[in-house]
This record gives sequence, C-alpha cells and structure tokens, in this order.
Amino acid sequence: MSDTDEEVITEAHGAGGGQMRELIEELAVSRFEDGAADVPLAALDDGSVQRLANGGGSLVVTTDSHVVKPQFFRGGDIGRLAVSGTVNDLAMMGATEPIALTCSLIVEAGTPVETVERVMESMGETSEEAGAPITTGDTKVMGSGDIDTIAINTTGVGVVPQGSHVPDAGLSTGDKLIVTGTIGDHGISLLSEREGFDFEGDLESDVAPVNDLVATAMDAGEVTAMKDPTRGGLATSLNEMASKAEVGIEIDETAIPISGAVASAGEVLGIEPLNVANEGKVVMGVESDDADAVLAAIQAHPQGEDAAIVGEVVADHAGRVILDTGFGNRYLSEPEGEQLPRIC
Amino acid sequence: MSDTDEEVITEAHGAGGGQMRELIEELAVSRFEDGAADVPLAALDDGSVQRLANGGGSLVVTTDSHVVKPQFFRGGDIGRLAVSGTVNDLAMMGATEPIALTCSLIVEAGTPVETVERVMESMGETSEEAGAPITTGDTKVMGSGDIDTIAINTTGVGVVPQGSHVPDAGLSTGDKLIVTGTIGDHGISLLSEREGFDFEGDLESDVAPVNDLVATAMDAGEVTAMKDPTRGGLATSLNEMASKAEVGIEIDETAIPISGAVASAGEVLGIEPLNVANEGKVVMGVESDDADAVLAAIQAHPQGEDAAIVGEVVADHAGRVILDTGFGNRYLSEPEGEQLPRIC
Ligand SMILES: Nc1ncnc2c1ncn2[C@@H]1O[C@H](COP(=O)(O)OP(=O)(O)OP(=O)(O)O)[C@@H](O)[C@H]1O
Ligand SMILES: Nc1ncnc2c1ncn2[C@@H]1O[C@H](COP(=O)(O)OP(=O)(O)OP(=O)(O)O)[C@@H](O)[C@H]1O
Ligand SMILES: [Mg+2]
Ligand SMILES: [Mg+2]
Ligand SMILES: [Mg+2]
Ligand SMILES: [Mg+2]
Ligand SMILES: [Mg+2]
Ligand SMILES: [Mg+2]
Repeated sequence: MSDTDEEVITEAHGAGGGQMRELIEELAVSRFEDGAADVPLAALDDGSVQRLANGGGSLVVTTDSHVVKPQFFRGGDIGRLAVSGTVNDLAMMGATEPIALTCSLIVEAGTPVETVERVMESMGETSEEAGAPITTGDTKVMGSGDIDTIAINTTGVGVVPQGSHVPDAGLSTGDKLIVTGTIGDHGISLLSEREGFDFEGDLESDVAPVNDLVATAMDAGEVTAMKDPTRGGLATSLNEMASKAEVGIEIDETAIPISGAVASAGEVLGIEPLNVANEGKVVMGVESDDADAVLAAIQAHPQGEDAAIVGEVVADHAGRVILDTGFGNRYLSEPEGEQLPRIC
Repeated sequence: MSDTDEEVITEAHGAGGGQMRELIEELAVSRFEDGAADVPLAALDDGSVQRLANGGGSLVVTTDSHVVKPQFFRGGDIGRLAVSGTVNDLAMMGATEPIALTCSLIVEAGTPVETVERVMESMGETSEEAGAPITTGDTKVMGSGDIDTIAINTTGVGVVPQGSHVPDAGLSTGDKLIVTGTIGDHGISLLSEREGFDFEGDLESDVAPVNDLVATAMDAGEVTAMKDPTRGGLATSLNEMASKAEVGIEIDETAIPISGAVASAGEVLGIEPLNVANEGKVVMGVESDDADAVLAAIQAHPQGEDAAIVGEVVADHAGRVILDTGFGNRYLSEPEGEQLPRIC
C-alpha cells in the first residue's frame, strides 16, 4: 500500500480478510501507541488485555460497529447482533462476565422511532440474556441519505484474573481444535434472505451470546486459544490462529458440523460456508488431555449439542491449515476477494 | 412519545437538547438494566461508574460516535474530535488518566485511503497528547451512498479510586461555577465555516483533550460536579447540573469568557454562543473555599488562561439557571428546536 494517494477504500477492506488486515496494519498499528499490554493492538486479537494497577486483574476491552442489511433477519436483528458480537469478543479473550457494554447509535433522520425501539428492545433482551449490563451510550442523528437507517457500536469491558486471558496465539502442538456447533448459519442465511431465497425456512442466523458456553468450556479444561469466526468465517479464523502461533493446523473436513440446509444453500448461492460469518459459534484450541472433557461439557450445554473435535495442531506446515477432505489433503487458504461475500 | 408508530427520528433528536433526552429515556433508560452502579445509565451523566471487585477502584466507561461535517475544519478534524471527546467525557467523571480507548471506523466505499490515513494520524497524535492509548478497534465498510465518508466511535475506559468520581449531580449551595476558557468556539467556528464565512480567520475550534487541565483543577481543590459543554452548549450543561442537583445556579453573563470573533460571528449567524458545542472546555462546580485556588491553578495551565468564575449555586430556583445580564435577571433556559444548530 505504497501509493495511498490514488487508492480508495473498497468493500474488500471491510470483508474480514487479508486486505482488511493490511489496511489495519498500515493505518492503525503503525500509528497508535498502546503502551504496555498483555495483548496489545498489534496482536490483532478479538480485544486488548492490559494489567490494572494494584493487582486488580487485567482489563479486557473490545469494540465492534454493526451495519448489517437487512436489519431484521431470520434468527435475529442488528440489536441482538451488536450485543452478541461484543459479548462474544470479550469471551474469546476469556472474559465471560462482562462488566459494562456501551450502546452508541447513529440513526438516519426519517427512521421510524418504532424501528429504533425494536432494536433497543432486542439489545436489552440480549444484554440480559448475557448478563452484560449496558451502562452508557450515545445517540447521533445524520441527515437523511447520510447513513443507511442505523449503525450501532457496542464496546465491551471485562476484567479477568491476571494471566488468565486466552490469546489467539495460544495454540501448541498436540492441541485439539473444537468448534462449538454448525458452521456458516449466519452468513448463508443472510445472503439467501438477501437473494430472496427461502430454502423452506430451514435457514436462520445463529446470532447469540456465547459467554456462558465459553465459561462452561473453560471450567472443563485448558482452553489455549479462541476465536469467534465472524467476518471471513472459520477459514479465516483457523488461518489466523495457525499463523499467530506459528503452528500447523490439520482439519478433518468431514468432522466440521454443517447443517444440510446451509450446505445446499451454499451450493445454490455458490458460497463456501467455511468463508462466511458465524455469530454464535467458537473455534477453540484445547489441551489434548482435556479435549474429551471439554467437548462433553460443551455438548451438554444448550448451545453446544453439535460441537465436534475437528482437528489438531501439528508441528509442521507452520502458519498453514491443512484440510483432509476425505479424498486427500489440501491447504485451506484464507478467503480473498470474490470468496468473501459482504454481509456487514 | 406515545404514538411512536407514526413518529420518525428527526435531527432534533440528535441535537443534545430536551428532545434527545426524552428519546434516550424512552428508548434506553427504560429498557437497559445496568445492575448496581455508582453512576448508572439512568443518571445520564458523561459516562458510567461501577465498583470493581476486590477494592480495585471504580470503572469509568464512556462512548461517543462522531459524524461531523466538514471532517477537516479550522482547528481540528474528526479524528482529533473523536479522541478528545472521549478523553474529556472520562475526565468529566474524574478519570483523568484513561487506560484504554477504542477506535471503530465506518468508512464509505470510495473514500480515498489518504483521507482515512489523515484521520488516523490525527487520532494517534491526540491520543499521545492525552496519554490515552488506543488499544483496540474495528473497521467496517459501507456501500457508497450508505454512509457519508466516515463515522468514528471512540469508547474510553478509566479507573478511579472508589468514591472519587465526580458526578453531574454534585453541586450544593455555595459552590462556585468555573468555566475553563472561552465559550462557543467550536460551534460558531464550524457553523461559519459551513456558511462560507471567514471572519478574518479569527475563528477556530477549541477541540482538545482537557484531562490534564482537569487533573490540575482537581489537585487544587474540591471539584463537586463537571460537564464538558458539547452538544447543546453551556446553556444545556448548566441546566442539567442545576436540575440533577435540584439547586439553582446564578450566572453573571458578563463574566462568561467569549472571544470577540465568536461574539460577532454569533450575531451575524443569528446563533447564541451559549447554545453551541465546545470541544475543549469544562464547566465545573467548586467548593466555595477552594474556588480561588482552583481558578488560579487552571489559569496557570496553558489551556486555562481565560478561565473565570461565572456564578454560584443558590438554594432557591431549584433546577433553574438565572442569568444576570447586567441589565436584570432572566432564566437561561435549555435551548430547543431552532435554537440548537446541528453540528455533529
Ligand atoms: N480502526 C481500527 N483501529 C484500531 N484497530 C483496529 C481497527 N480496526 C480493526 N482493528 C483491530 O484489528 C483486529 C481485527 O479486527 P476485527 O474487527 O476483524 O476483529 P473482530 O471484532 O474479532 O471481528 P468482527 O469485526 O468480524 O467481529 C482487532 O484486534 C482490532 O482491534
Ligand atoms: N443510545 C443510547 N443508549 C444508552 N444510553 C444513551 C444512548 N444515547 C445516550 N445515552 C446516554 O445519555 C446521556 C447523554 O448522552 P450524551 O451523548 O448527550 O452525553 P455526552 O457524550 O456527554 O455528550 P456529547 O455526545 O454531546 O459529547 C449519557 O449518559 C449517555 O450514556
Ligand atoms: Mg472476534
Ligand atoms: Mg467482533
Ligand atoms: Mg455522547
Ligand atoms: Mg459530556
Ligand atoms: Mg461526549
Ligand atoms: Mg471487529
């Protein structure tokens, strides 16, 4: 990105893949000093982790803005998405008991008050479901045409005992990889809804707060790394985890839980479920000896019945993800460009 | 707001006056549970304050989204505004040493990368100036036409010793009111720039982080209440402080520092400087015995040379602000509707 004078922001910069990461590294990481942190901005993790004074534990902070279309979709809405997304990014750092969430709205003039009310109602319900109080917010109105309906930023704050946070980069050889449920539901459902396909009503977003599920898993064994596979999907999250830890990941493709409806809709749409956003799922590394116990605990949780061990960490192929397709092995690469449909 | 079915969001809902507050009370306060807090959402203060476990002090959180036009203006830009606004809201709660700031961008596809770079550069510089590290962020891209260029959310987190936060509602009879400098600069400068008026280059925004100035004031004496008079201006902040503490405030209009350029531009534009946003100023209540010491400390600070004692808290006229104009007294009411020009 040398000749920035001539470059413009494209939708690919917001799609969650390599182009987005390059932009963030160029624009943010190089410019923002973030002092001493256990997980600094430069780690590009789900949030930051910093030690508090006086042994008060470590502060976890994460933020996301949400601009999804349509704003009310099968299985949820932008309000549920905004709260879940931030609760989940906190949980990915090990902070499963959020202390405070913010609610910052940008609303287009002319939007029915009732639309905003429905969104706030949903935020309130999801915040209660997650045990994550919304303590402060902001409301800005933009001129009609200056913003499409409504954008919501939610920032989350948690505190964890010092050293107990879970980084993206925590995998080591031998760890098992667990996914907590079916993959691709949010992305495939939204994209088919946008195309006007119904697929017999079998598709819906998985949007939900997963902090309780994550706490259950962490209680059952040693979780070494976690990500919520949102923009860029499971394929992107696995590649990030492999490259941050400089390990290889071997995935058994046939073990990845994907619902029949998602698989067939994905084929019709020409979209790979591994490349689209999930909003209520986790991919985690677990110490090998604990993997069965953690899996059992997750499966016993109402949100985890479809959980599965999908692979393991290996010493070679550092930074790469190898997919055993059942017919042979191939690299599962990070999706780019056309492979990354824009959802949010 | 009973017949919400038929109502739509208007620009007045974002202007910082009574209509905005009603909307927030109806939509947010009634729906969001915020657990036990020293300063809960319902206080509608500059941020929230909650006790941390194990005597780790109190957590202060605040958030603002920024959508100003133009994005580069005399005296600053949207990046400086976003960092200063959040640092200042933390400072208003007594948290003058921010631990973490977030940077969440929503960018319109087609925006030159260079524009985003300039904004991020400014955010980085202002964050360094304020000693407020940006530790995490988010980047979303909206389709061309779905957002006007760029919106930035910044959320700030601080920790203060338990009980040492400064609420809006802290005034009591006898307290003096101090403003830390000239009033109306940001709003009048932006509005005249938008109208194409130059006023001989004497106008510019006051946008700046004031956390160091606030720390200086708090070190010098007992500060009982604070607000940064942003949207709605000084008139709104004074009315909020009076009504939250259920006290009267008497202001000597002639003591309010207003620059000559702002006063004349305000007349030409037909806009009252007391009703427009400041982005680098504070209005604070100070215990009577400490007022001179606090004023002297503020005036000795590079950002405080124009500071002045502008009034005091009285027992009668509870919830009202009385303006001594030099020719008699009148109530300074909270601006509404037409009186509230839209800046952000
Ligand atoms: N504008 C920005 N300023 C600073 N850091 C940023 C910015 N945008 C993104 N980041 C950082 O980049 C990393 C990746 O961000 P990303 O938004 O992809 O993570 P995520 O929230 O887990 O995913 P998603 O937004 O899809 O839910 C994070 O560490 C985030 O803090
Ligand atoms: N959408 C929202 N959800 C929850 N609380 C909100 C929302 N919008 C505003 N609030 C609350 O209303 C109060 C007033 O907000 P406001 O934005 O006016 O404060 P401010 O940030 O100090 O001012 P400004 O935004 O002009 O800088 C705050 O306590 C804020 O937490
Ligand atoms: Mg994440
Ligand atoms: Mg996220
Ligand atoms: Mg605000
Ligand atoms: Mg404020
Ligand atoms: Mg503010
Ligand atoms: Mg994000």
